[in-house]
Amino acid sequence: MRSWERTLEQLCVHLRETALLESIRSVLQWDERTMMPAAGGEYRAESLTWLAGSIHRRQTDPRLEDWLVELEASPLANDPHGDAGATIREVRREYDRQTRLPQLLVEQLARTTVRGEQAWVEARANDSFAMLLPWLKEIFRLKRQQAEALGYRQSPYDALLEGFEPGASTTEVATVLEQLRSELVPLVRAIQDSGRQAPRGILQRRFPRDAQERFGRFVAAAIGFDFARGRLDVTAHPFCSSLGPHDCRITTRYDEHFFPSAFFGILHEAGHGIYDQGLRPDQYGLAPGSALSLGIHESQSRLWENQVGRGRAFWQHFLPLAAREFPEALNDVSLDDFCFAINAVNPSLIRVEADEATYNLHIVIRFELEQALITGDLTVEDLPAAWNERYRRNLGIQPDSDRDGVLQDIHWSAGLIGYFPTYSLGNLYAAQFFAQVDEDLGGIEPQLARGQFGPLREWLRERIHQVGRCYSADQLVEKVTGGGLSQRCLMSYLHRRLDPLYGLG
Amino acid sequence: MRSWERTLEQLCVHLRETALLESIRSVLQWDERTMMPAAGGEYRAESLTWLAGSIHRRQTDPRLEDWLVELEASPLANDPHGDAGATIREVRREYDRQTRLPQLLVEQLARTTVRGEQAWVEARANDSFAMLLPWLKEIFRLKRQQAEALGYRQSPYDALLEGFEPGASTTEVATVLEQLRSELVPLVRAIQDSGRQAPRGILQRRFPRDAQERFGRFVAAAIGFDFARGRLDVTAHPFCSSLGPHDCRITTRYDEHFFPSAFFGILHEAGHGIYDQGLRPDQYGLAPGSALSLGIHESQSRLWENQVGRGRAFWQHFLPLAAREFPEALNDVSLDDFCFAINAVNPSLIRVEADEATYNLHIVIRFELEQALITGDLTVEDLPAAWNERYRRNLGIQPDSDRDGVLQDIHWSAGLIGYFPTYSLGNLYAAQFFAQVDEDLGGIEPQLARGQFGPLREWLRERIHQVGRCYSADQLVEKVTGGGLSQRCLMSYLHRRLDPLYGLG
Repeated sequence: MRSWERTLEQLCVHLRETALLESIRSVLQWDERTMMPAAGGEYRAESLTWLAGSIHRRQTDPRLEDWLVELEASPLANDPHGDAGATIREVRREYDRQTRLPQLLVEQLARTTVRGEQAWVEARANDSFAMLLPWLKEIFRLKRQQAEALGYRQSPYDALLEGFEPGASTTEVATVLEQLRSELVPLVRAIQDSGRQAPRGILQRRFPRDAQERFGRFVAAAIGFDFARGRLDVTAHPFCSSLGPHDCRITTRYDEHFFPSAFFGILHEAGHGIYDQGLRPDQYGLAPGSALSLGIHESQSRLWENQVGRGRAFWQHFLPLAAREFPEALNDVSLDDFCFAINAVNPSLIRVEADEATYNLHIVIRFELEQALITGDLTVEDLPAAWNERYRRNLGIQPDSDRDGVLQDIHWSAGLIGYFPTYSLGNLYAAQFFAQVDEDLGGIEPQLARGQFGPLREWLRERIHQVGRCYSADQLVEKVTGGGLSQRCLMSYLHRRLDPLYGLG
Repeated sequence: MRSWERTLEQLCVHLRETALLESIRSVLQWDERTMMPAAGGEYRAESLTWLAGSIHRRQTDPRLEDWLVELEASPLANDPHGDAGATIREVRREYDRQTRLPQLLVEQLARTTVRGEQAWVEARANDSFAMLLPWLKEIFRLKRQQAEALGYRQSPYDALLEGFEPGASTTEVATVLEQLRSELVPLVRAIQDSGRQAPRGILQRRFPRDAQERFGRFVAAAIGFDFARGRLDVTAHPFCSSLGPHDCRITTRYDEHFFPSAFFGILHEAGHGIYDQGLRPDQYGLAPGSALSLGIHESQSRLWENQVGRGRAFWQHFLPLAAREFPEALNDVSLDDFCFAINAVNPSLIRVEADEATYNLHIVIRFELEQALITGDLTVEDLPAAWNERYRRNLGIQPDSDRDGVLQDIHWSAGLIGYFPTYSLGNLYAAQFFAQVDEDLGGIEPQLARGQFGPLREWLRERIHQVGRCYSADQLVEKVTGGGLSQRCLMSYLHRRLDPLYGLG
């Protein structure tokens, strides 16, 4: 055995043990968000702080530098997309990033963001931004410190964005989002001017909670979420988290008088889950067995939620089954009306319930606000006013309460700054992947209409899930679709779906 | 600050961090037993193995020896029941014990028992002892190694018993249990000869699961289990576990056609939970904030389950409320009939559903079998036959299947050898404590009949819970009741409750 082969083995043992600690942290976080009695929060914060410190110590272990230097000079580094080459490259990226962060800051961030999440739950329940204010101030203060410690080329925001979407720059993302906005605004305006109103009322009838859960599970399993290797639970802010290579947990929240809330939430999280469940278990904790980026992760959830789940073909198959589960609500509803209802475009206050045309405008607002908060152009005290002003300007509406405004998302309270734009990247990638699979499979709609999701799922598994982190997002999109990131697929998909409903074009 | 004051502080910081790791392990174990999809088991075993190794390394940290030597020579050691003195004594006991165990054996035991628990769930579901056999053989092999490593005076079983009931010896326990058996046998015989039959049928009517859960929560909260600091969930083998100083989780299982199964299970686990919730949170992880022993822990669960929960006074208060929750099952049931039904004595197969008179005979069987397995007088292959033979001999009945026989308990599969006798010690202590509180409060029944549980709970909290591990079990019983361990209180309690029902004495 060559010296570098032994070194690679040592590195992988180290990485797998770090992944073990990260999975332990995921168990504690999942439990905190779904099960833990509130009184347990303070002690849980201590546990998570301890874990964050231990993980950071392992990620900055000085032996990594020695191992990396040797491996980077070995033949393994010549194949950057091979299992070993990708692992070496990704460890280098993460090691350089982590060693720039002082241990104390890592632990302060962990402690503060755990308590921040808990404060958010309470602040939102009490509709009180004031309850969250001290936590948010402290979190943005620490995140600014983090950005300075990490370093950046143009904006401190770059340093944070890099943590969620490696390789992305603030300027590039801003450019893509601006292109998207410039095409979305006339589309939304044309829809509002069309005079047509979607029959939203049918989605606001009574959909009993138990039936929603049963139907949600049924559909999630049908598209390929494996419940033998996963769970579905209830939480305030839905998420998907993997607690190990064969233990993926998704969550949702139920509204008995708004069907899409839980249903598309479950489809969305199941899409994330199918990605995680499609990763190579033998490479768990190493680059080839890791999700590529948040943007790519989001592309998988969006594709199942929107491209598939809001399509006519999908409901050709599922509407009769839904009508059996919700006879009172759906027995008199036609496929046309149902599809119009779930694709209604209406500027609204809550991001997670926004339609596909206005959704990215919600992201643009958050993207701009968090940049301003990080650069210091906006103070946390002024955030609610700035939030409301931007909603008025961009969407023509404004919240009556912070609960439906600045308090609606957990992200900032959890220290996730630079995360929001990955949602829009996900929308863009999803449209590009879906156009490609439609071409590759010679028209996918007939399969979906028969409830056959296997070919689509396998296409995604082979081309995206099993690739793990062996390519960058740019490279993957190029490899899969033959082109670069662009708003074109998303816009033509939206026109194809919305124009007939609203009599446009 | 004196040198030993600084040393005490270092020791306490170390102990609190170890407790943090132990609480993380508790989260993972709780999740494994209540929530985790089965496919997650293998990876979870890896996580628990890693944690067991880390905890063991901390418990055998060589600095402990230095700290202990200094503290044992300090004035703190002169007050063995003070907070510091008790902590020093208990750390010494645990340190001496742990340093005798090789790290490799600790990790093997952790890995094997996690997988053993998982194998037990499957073996029981399939009623297949053969599925469990290889795991059980390996576990007993490792436990024999553990006993040899720990050392013992008379029997290797002593070394294992000490882990659950510090200070107890196999001979002493055997003597007490034999005394108890010699008085129980004629009582059970007299009951069987009485010709009277309890109206058990009323407990086998239909008790809807949701109503059982609602009523169980209501009663658990009424006796003092704090749901703001705890949870109740469903599991195959009910347990109580504290995941932190303010996060106590109890579990149960529901049988819609046997009311006592879940109800007395909940009371039992709530009794454990009230003990844990009554410990001093500021001393979490240190001796004054730790439960004393399994026997004392069990005394708290038994006291609420039996002395309180099967008493006429308790049901004077709760039966009308139960009848409202289960109108179809209980509307026509008199207090007399209900109390007779829940106190029926009948030799039966399942320990956790056994009546109070025969319960300790179940324990004697396990106590004898596990001793024989550890000493090598019995092989694991011969265990099912030996189990059935002893049931025939001691209780006059024998299981049709291993599911109702040797597969009914998780303990051995989880490596808990030497645990069973603590259940009987708990029964004995419970009766002694209850007799004492009855005397101290000047007759407790009228309070219970009014649904007033506060004075009893506070009496337990002050005299037992808040004492933590500052005394040994023997010392505590002496301190609280003025006497030593004895079967007298339990026997006179049983005669007082059962004689009138069966027309004896």
